[in-house]
Amino acid sequence: VDTGSHAPIIRAAAVPGVTLHALTQARDERGALAALELSAVPFEPKRIFTVYDVPSESVRGAHAHRECQQFLVCVAGRLTCLVDDGESSDEIDMDGPSIGVHIPRLVWGTQWRYSRDAVLLVIASHPYDAADYIRDYDEFLAIVRG
Amino acid sequence: VDTGSHAPIIRAAAVPGVTLHALTQARDERGALAALELSAVPFEPKRIFTVYDVPSESVRGAHAHRECQQFLVCVAGRLTCLVDDGESSDEIDMDGPSIGVHIPRLVWGTQWRYSRDAVLLVIASHPYDAADYIRDYDEFLAIVRG
Repeated sequence: VDTGSHAPIIRAAAVPGVTLHALTQARDERGALAALELSAVPFEPKRIFTVYDVPSESVRGAHAHRECQQFLVCVAGRLTCLVDDGESSDEIDMDGPSIGVHIPRLVWGTQWRYSRDAVLLVIASHPYDAADYIRDYDEFLAIVRG
Repeated sequence: VDTGSHAPIIRAAAVPGVTLHALTQARDERGALAALELSAVPFEPKRIFTVYDVPSESVRGAHAHRECQQFLVCVAGRLTCLVDDGESSDEIDMDGPSIGVHIPRLVWGTQWRYSRDAVLLVIASHPYDAADYIRDYDEFLAIVRG
């Protein structure tokens, strides 16, 4: 299946810099496929991780990164992604692998309302670095407003 | 969570060149995470795709690639991965994101026994190229034995 080479921007979110990209999908009697050429991701991927088995009442994320950019795809189930730059915010429903959400550095990101079967795939621009996390919202506001 | 920077080889498969790698996993009351530093993948990733909604009787794959290498992770559910180089073969049960399977070029790969909720994540070394597929098993044998 030729699933193309692009992940075109569907729309910008209400938070400047946050963009929604279309993944290419194909479906036939043998099942479905969703593809992403990594040249379409706005950074060089260095790490990927999945988040899964999240209790429905749990909130994940709730932090920003000083440098790391992320590209989120909900590869199973559904969840809600909240993005916030300290001035504006947006809530993005992710219910399958049709969209990827690019979250630049210095955007507060929260994911919640995970369905029982939800799996969030995150493509990250940097290897893991604990020092890159901003976990205090007031500190985040001071940085983006400063 | 510091999920480390390596995906160490757990074991070699019965097919030379096919290796099983450990992903780093972390689990707490908020859910689970499985991580892979892309520097641990034995090639530069150019494309990722997921295969999902596969009927249990379906067989996916059943081809080899002339150049493309792949790194497979079962990010939800379970499935069975068959690898075959024309001389030896191996069957690998994949029941979660704890392992990644590196499949070099010129290895015949088949995936089957998808559970209803299975999602296979494939990291590929090349963009999509229809000409890179070998879909005829006899042609495959002629190439690897030639």
